[in-house]
Amino acid sequence: MDSIESAADVRYTDEKGLAEALRGADALFVYDFLSGAVPAAWHAADRIRWVHIASAGVDPVMFPELRDSEVILTNSRGVFDSSIAEYVLGVVIAFAKDLSRSLDLQRERRWQHRESERVAGRRALVVGTGPIGRAIARLLRAAGMPVSGMGRRARDDDPDFGTVYASADLVRVLPEFDYVIAVAPLTEQTKGLFDGAAFAAMKPTARFVNVGRGELVVTSDLVQALRDGRIAGAALDVFETEPLPSDHPLWTLPNVLVSPHMSGDFAGWRNTLVEVFADNFERWQTDLPLRNVVDKQLGYVPSGH
Amino acid sequence: MDSIESAADVRYTDEKGLAEALRGADALFVYDFLSGAVPAAWHAADRIRWVHIASAGVDPVMFPELRDSEVILTNSRGVFDSSIAEYVLGVVIAFAKDLSRSLDLQRERRWQHRESERVAGRRALVVGTGPIGRAIARLLRAAGMPVSGMGRRARDDDPDFGTVYASADLVRVLPEFDYVIAVAPLTEQTKGLFDGAAFAAMKPTARFVNVGRGELVVTSDLVQALRDGRIAGAALDVFETEPLPSDHPLWTLPNVLVSPHMSGDFAGWRNTLVEVFADNFERWQTDLPLRNVVDKQLGYVPSGH
Repeated sequence: MDSIESAADVRYTDEKGLAEALRGADALFVYDFLSGAVPAAWHAADRIRWVHIASAGVDPVMFPELRDSEVILTNSRGVFDSSIAEYVLGVVIAFAKDLSRSLDLQRERRWQHRESERVAGRRALVVGTGPIGRAIARLLRAAGMPVSGMGRRARDDDPDFGTVYASADLVRVLPEFDYVIAVAPLTEQTKGLFDGAAFAAMKPTARFVNVGRGELVVTSDLVQALRDGRIAGAALDVFETEPLPSDHPLWTLPNVLVSPHMSGDFAGWRNTLVEVFADNFERWQTDLPLRNVVDKQLGYVPSGH
Repeated sequence: MDSIESAADVRYTDEKGLAEALRGADALFVYDFLSGAVPAAWHAADRIRWVHIASAGVDPVMFPELRDSEVILTNSRGVFDSSIAEYVLGVVIAFAKDLSRSLDLQRERRWQHRESERVAGRRALVVGTGPIGRAIARLLRAAGMPVSGMGRRARDDDPDFGTVYASADLVRVLPEFDYVIAVAPLTEQTKGLFDGAAFAAMKPTARFVNVGRGELVVTSDLVQALRDGRIAGAALDVFETEPLPSDHPLWTLPNVLVSPHMSGDFAGWRNTLVEVFADNFERWQTDLPLRNVVDKQLGYVPSGH
């Protein structure tokens, strides 16, 4: 933060001191990006013009007072793309090669040969066509998987996805896919998108991967679908409640991989997040247009595509 | 086997009946490709002209009487390439994303965020430049990893590897790599290639992956290197003794992934192996040159490259 401290009066605060720190501040850097503290303290933001968040998803700051204000909102688009894509390919291969079972058998010192699945040729649907979804699509395609996208608007000429289906067609197209990856921004339109009807439409052999937000899913419907074998597995890095409560059934359901919201967090990510803010701060000081400006009506940075 | 049964007198046998079945046989299909039974029964092979093995590695049939005979030896080159490459990329990502620890924590219902490693940019050395090594190189490169090869002969213009180092330089080049993948054929030259000196030359952060043969490694040296933290981990699909004995230390060492010689065995592999034999059988009957003819002095099918 040196470059910023040398050019501005910087106040560091936790949730408790946020309202006081906001008073008189021109800009807010939301570093604790899952905190829900901003709406409650917003009443004190008497001259704020810019909010930057150290994440790709901006849902924690999409409350009406900020959304409908003139305040510019920017995010950390780009930082997590490749890491999350690697994580997604990793869980896809882990499912195909039955890695979790191999580790269980290893713990029991049991040699039990099994046949595994190929990854190449299995079809993936990436729900969310922002930069993270695009990085996922490129990497899965590099591993030989045919990939389609799903976004607001159907099209056939997307550079990363080829075909993009419209979200409204989710249930209709789901039966085509072996892996369904949720990475859409959380908005009023995407909340609860993956519900009982969606899981019922998936192949019984399909796996669901969530690296977006827990609220994209009706969690009880997912649990039921896994219990009933309506889908074959799920890899979940995000949850409606985080940390996932220790008595939650997702911890122990078979064929579920739980990870603690870490898929994008490569060693060095914290520095990178500060660098993204510092770069935008320099642009802000010199009246250059800011990078990664969120369309607050859409709830994300509109894609160049 | 229908097409073969309709054209030949086919005898099926296990190890016990092998000598009797070999008597008078023109060709031998070694379907149980890890069996060591062929050398012991070979005395009865009184008119054999062709041996085909349902594997890529031919070491179980590289005994002197067969090697120095006129008998043609063919293998199942190509069947396992993509599956093994997928497995290798899977364990690479599993290491980078700490997947094994995530599963351990999941079992304890513990939410513990960690930082993970990137895969892109990490350097891999693939020791073995046959078709499996090439498939591994292409897939790791597609995931953003710079890859080099190691083979008999150094060169700089390999289509899949770019740089190929000569095996004699192993210890010298090992310090450059984050992942070292053993997939060389087992020959007198490669036996015990990965010994204490090799593991000492690797980065302490490097991981070793063996999808070739257990005998490429001096297992006690690998165990010691893992115990001493001289390397950061190992993913092992093959072992000097298979099944791996239940009291073997590799089952329980931290940062070791043990799988039961299954990395290439995708659902459908058994049929594919018979198809490869049936194709060569048809060529044999019609006096066409056989596919995948092993150079018995080298101990593998020489690459077109």
